[in-house]
Amino acid sequence: MSTSYVPPKVWQWQPKEDNKFASINRPTAGARFERELPVGQHPLQLYSLATPNGQKVTILLEELLQKGIAGAEYDAWLIDIGEGDQFGSGFVAVNPNSKIPALVDRGVSPAIPVFESGAILLYLAEKFGAFIPGAPKARAACLSWLFWQMGATPYLGGGFGHFYAYANEKQQYPIDRFTMEVKRQLDLLDQQLAQHEYVAGSDYSIADMAIWPWYGALVVGEAYNAAEFLGAASYQNVLRWQKQVAARPGVQRGRLVNRRNGGLRERHAASDFDAILKKA
Amino acid sequence: MSTSYVPPKVWQWQPKEDNKFASINRPTAGARFERELPVGQHPLQLYSLATPNGQKVTILLEELLQKGIAGAEYDAWLIDIGEGDQFGSGFVAVNPNSKIPALVDRGVSPAIPVFESGAILLYLAEKFGAFIPGAPKARAACLSWLFWQMGATPYLGGGFGHFYAYANEKQQYPIDRFTMEVKRQLDLLDQQLAQHEYVAGSDYSIADMAIWPWYGALVVGEAYNAAEFLGAASYQNVLRWQKQVAARPGVQRGRLVNRRNGGLRERHAASDFDAILKKA
Repeated sequence: MSTSYVPPKVWQWQPKEDNKFASINRPTAGARFERELPVGQHPLQLYSLATPNGQKVTILLEELLQKGIAGAEYDAWLIDIGEGDQFGSGFVAVNPNSKIPALVDRGVSPAIPVFESGAILLYLAEKFGAFIPGAPKARAACLSWLFWQMGATPYLGGGFGHFYAYANEKQQYPIDRFTMEVKRQLDLLDQQLAQHEYVAGSDYSIADMAIWPWYGALVVGEAYNAAEFLGAASYQNVLRWQKQVAARPGVQRGRLVNRRNGGLRERHAASDFDAILKKA
Repeated sequence: MSTSYVPPKVWQWQPKEDNKFASINRPTAGARFERELPVGQHPLQLYSLATPNGQKVTILLEELLQKGIAGAEYDAWLIDIGEGDQFGSGFVAVNPNSKIPALVDRGVSPAIPVFESGAILLYLAEKFGAFIPGAPKARAACLSWLFWQMGATPYLGGGFGHFYAYANEKQQYPIDRFTMEVKRQLDLLDQQLAQHEYVAGSDYSIADMAIWPWYGALVVGEAYNAAEFLGAASYQNVLRWQKQVAARPGVQRGRLVNRRNGGLRERHAASDFDAILKKA
């Protein structure tokens, strides 16, 4: 690797059109246009997309419903981040960070907006008293792993995924840097899952729901087509857990919500799944 | 930018010595040697270093003590990540992810290990009922911003900081990518702090404690020497908040804990600060 690049004194934005996200990403925050968010009949209104971060929340909601917790009924609206929906004024009022998923709980007064997938998982798990342990030590382990996912996965998504799969030209230095970290994360999960049935211990929890859509997809080749590159076959315990979680009906439904194609664009009732799950 | 790099089918680790972190970072997790952790007299045992992630927790502990909450007395032990202390068996038993900070609450039975700075902030704020709002809407806002920091800052630390300040050779593409995102984050905080005294609303909370050590340091040039490059002077509301938080006695003490130089290597009692704060 050899470059002669010298950064300027003051960085200036130079908009480029050489990448599909170039027109979406900007160095500023805030609404770019006026648009209200739709509101359905249920107390919980979700604005999302079936990316891994989006799947976390729809999986939790479907798991809550699977448990018979009727209060978890929800309307899920599709936010197409490729089209810039996340910069509409209504969405920004809920999440000023302009990222999916975002939730509004209208079942309480005043209505409560929540953003960041980890915060939404915690909010819903506490609201319904499910998928988060009650015992202090187990709860601390669950939260430690939930926060671990939030801090670790930018190295997978914004680091490895970007430079390995999305960047127009491949550069060895960033690919090596982020590959090493992702393999460390997979080895960490593999050791943890060798000792415990689920990530945070013996119970399936929001820690699994946060981690599975990213690292589960990664080891079976559904993310970045990188399973061979990362030597995924060597993470046997992650593969065992991936399969175990994938078999859960709530997970199977949750993954289908807010898909642009091959699933439900929107979800407003349990019966919305009937046609698509019969087909499968 | 032009490269002809083609990634291999299967990535192989090639240890390098061309970077000061190269011998520390590996593609595997777990303990590398046997070493027990020291234990002091207080219920709370912190194993940390005064990096921004470490400062979050010592600031909260000192803020709790400043409020007169005697139960927050703690022993803080220095984990020198440059020397690999985080790979000792005792530390790994508390935090298998081998990152600082890590906490053990020995004031309860069984003792509770907590890792990830965000999880530790939440654990302590809930334990002592302070610096986290009680009202559901305000609590959700605080948690949204707390989780925001965890997911956003890897783009600042592991992205921008690495490629702008630490990498041996400067590459324009990753610097541009991460600079744009960091400026977006600063603009987001600036807009939020234009409307609110603190990040999550009118009250100082663990959201501020999580965000301040990173973004406060950044805009005053204490991180990566990048204030001019990032146009920090334009984020006036972040600068106002930086100064306001910096003036708090708990923050001033918290920042000094677990410094390799120019502060307290270890902290075991309130009086440990006497000599150093008198000198200042």
